[in-house]
Amino acid sequence: MDMREASEAPAKKETGRLEAFSDGVFAIAITLLILNIEVPPLDGGTLAEAILRQWPAFLAYGVAFLAILIMWVNHHTLFRHIRRIDRAFLMLNGLLLMAVTFVNYPTALLTRYLVGSDNQVYTTAVAFLSATFVLIAILFNVLWRYAVYHDRLLGPNPNRAAVETISRQYLLGPLIYGVALVLAFFSPAASLILNGLLAIYFGFAGRSSATEM
Amino acid sequence: MDMREASEAPAKKETGRLEAFSDGVFAIAITLLILNIEVPPLDGGTLAEAILRQWPAFLAYGVAFLAILIMWVNHHTLFRHIRRIDRAFLMLNGLLLMAVTFVNYPTALLTRYLVGSDNQVYTTAVAFLSATFVLIAILFNVLWRYAVYHDRLLGPNPNRAAVETISRQYLLGPLIYGVALVLAFFSPAASLILNGLLAIYFGFAGRSSATEM
Amino acid sequence: MDMREASEAPAKKETGRLEAFSDGVFAIAITLLILNIEVPPLDGGTLAEAILRQWPAFLAYGVAFLAILIMWVNHHTLFRHIRRIDRAFLMLNGLLLMAVTFVNYPTALLTRYLVGSDNQVYTTAVAFLSATFVLIAILFNVLWRYAVYHDRLLGPNPNRAAVETISRQYLLGPLIYGVALVLAFFSPAASLILNGLLAIYFGFAGRSSATEM
Amino acid sequence: MDMREASEAPAKKETGRLEAFSDGVFAIAITLLILNIEVPPLDGGTLAEAILRQWPAFLAYGVAFLAILIMWVNHHTLFRHIRRIDRAFLMLNGLLLMAVTFVNYPTALLTRYLVGSDNQVYTTAVAFLSATFVLIAILFNVLWRYAVYHDRLLGPNPNRAAVETISRQYLLGPLIYGVALVLAFFSPAASLILNGLLAIYFGFAGRSSATEM
Repeated sequence: MDMREASEAPAKKETGRLEAFSDGVFAIAITLLILNIEVPPLDGGTLAEAILRQWPAFLAYGVAFLAILIMWVNHHTLFRHIRRIDRAFLMLNGLLLMAVTFVNYPTALLTRYLVGSDNQVYTTAVAFLSATFVLIAILFNVLWRYAVYHDRLLGPNPNRAAVETISRQYLLGPLIYGVALVLAFFSPAASLILNGLLAIYFGFAGRSSATEM
Repeated sequence: MDMREASEAPAKKETGRLEAFSDGVFAIAITLLILNIEVPPLDGGTLAEAILRQWPAFLAYGVAFLAILIMWVNHHTLFRHIRRIDRAFLMLNGLLLMAVTFVNYPTALLTRYLVGSDNQVYTTAVAFLSATFVLIAILFNVLWRYAVYHDRLLGPNPNRAAVETISRQYLLGPLIYGVALVLAFFSPAASLILNGLLAIYFGFAGRSSATEM
Repeated sequence: MDMREASEAPAKKETGRLEAFSDGVFAIAITLLILNIEVPPLDGGTLAEAILRQWPAFLAYGVAFLAILIMWVNHHTLFRHIRRIDRAFLMLNGLLLMAVTFVNYPTALLTRYLVGSDNQVYTTAVAFLSATFVLIAILFNVLWRYAVYHDRLLGPNPNRAAVETISRQYLLGPLIYGVALVLAFFSPAASLILNGLLAIYFGFAGRSSATEM
Repeated sequence: MDMREASEAPAKKETGRLEAFSDGVFAIAITLLILNIEVPPLDGGTLAEAILRQWPAFLAYGVAFLAILIMWVNHHTLFRHIRRIDRAFLMLNGLLLMAVTFVNYPTALLTRYLVGSDNQVYTTAVAFLSATFVLIAILFNVLWRYAVYHDRLLGPNPNRAAVETISRQYLLGPLIYGVALVLAFFSPAASLILNGLLAIYFGFAGRSSATEM
């Protein structure tokens, strides 16, 4: 038992390092989003009017920011149960981070084309963002399933109930974001708002007990 | 008592992680500001003249940098008293970070439109920056009130005097930045300079004792 | 022996700090890549068509992201054996980081010129990216050789077998990326795909044992 | 003695946090520099020619990267002796970070105007970069003098010899960068190269003993 603890220390350090790197990527990805809101041209009107005309850019910014914030929370929930990492986990986590930083691109599409475009452009932009969220939700499931399969990367006495709860909650992700994706083809605005509401719901819906965080 | 310490260790780790993520967002948001100062066109004059004509961009950069620096200091003061976090606190902190990264946008407006624009543009840009600061000051109050309400997220023996002092100081924030906001409609330049002076005053006005930091 | 441990503690702290700074640079460099994928103009077609026409930008993004991810993994493998740092190591590491952040430039070239350009442009862009990877692979060898020469920066009882394995593996890097560089002059597409496959292979090819990470 | 250690722990934590925030700003500032090298237009020639014509951008990038790297090393040397922080130190450090992130702007000027401009543009751009370095060197002195004055922020048994050495070395900074600034008005190219050489010299000139780092 003493030996196990000794042998776990460096592994723990490795997960901490991977988590710090991932946190850095999340923090940068979430902060870069603001660069998508461009200074509007005046076009003869007042600056206040120009800013108001940009409301879709603010909406897209808010939805993308909240979505990445929730992904970051999910990522930490996941790492709370991980005690070891191997190369495959490292690469799967890398693919997840790639998808998270990719969110910036569909957000940029939305920011640019959300207003003054015809319906197909609007629909495609929202659907692309939703599809990116579906992909990320799937990658979270792959990463988690890889880690918990036969307790591969869990600690010596994993909390089975908590692990099961996470497995079930993660399965919901692709389904719910999938609904938002389908909705985009009927009403892009409703889809975008649903994505925002989902982020807020997931954010506040976690157990409220402070010790459970 | 030993058990309490044991049970606090992971919570402490969680606050540390949230703080590290927040620090990352603050560091990126404050560094991205420099991208708003664009290389000036020469327009037939010398480069030195072109740089000097950009002075409002430098002023906006300085005010925004100092403001985010003070927000970062405030954020740490707040976290010094937090011992636990829950989901609602996490989301409220996320909204605060969203507002902090948003500062980049009104700074970009100011940088672009501070010179050579008519008065309404100038007024709107300064008022927008001030309004963002008011919003951030309000979010700091919400975050802090949520944490200290019934000692929700404080440690077992909170320093009541220090908590009260922070509660009172935070209340001043929206008021003072609100004055700067109102002032923008009378004199944008005075409002901008007031914002800069406030940041410097708040920065140096903390207790000078090294142990109090 | 006790004294050695005592004297190692601050050195360990120094390596940790250098590693944290390096991790920050890697995290930012890998996240900035997404800024190279620009919002496409519509040119009269649908947004979906405009996005599809951008496929080379997505390919370049994927290859560059995976390549920097593998470099980050390599960097950590290297630091696992380093116990001390000196000024020369610090500067060599700085040159390596400079080359890693530089990857953004050839990626931007590729993103812009991969489609609709004549063959020489396409070839030059891919060759430039490959050449950057060769340079980085060489810098990894220089950094590692400097550290292990006469056990300069290793701990008191270095794992000789592991050190030898890394020395051999690192030597392969410039060779393999050199092949991709030569290939660029015959088939840029094949060269780019080879670079992507190499990253995936190196990523998953590490020992699969979790304790070996 | 036990009590002193106990009371130092939180202060130590504060300096660590300030250092981590500063490291984040340094890491972002140094990585953003690459964004200044823009994808060149082809203008009818080959891409290789277009890249070669950009050599001054690469030179400016290299000089600025090395300069910020050395500033980061200096910052750490300074913090090795700091045991406490107060508000004034925090603000002075913030001003230093503002100047460090500002380096991006004169670097952008250089990247844009180093070639194809007449001599006054070239001179102004190089002089502006040098002047920024002089300012940063002065801010390092102010920060350090503030910390060591009457041992204000040093530990209980400061290493007087090391403190004196740093005080003397820091005084050299404004002088040497001042020479580069004056030189810019006679030969911008020589000034720029001198700045690069200074960074390399300072980088490698530290004591080579690994334990001295």
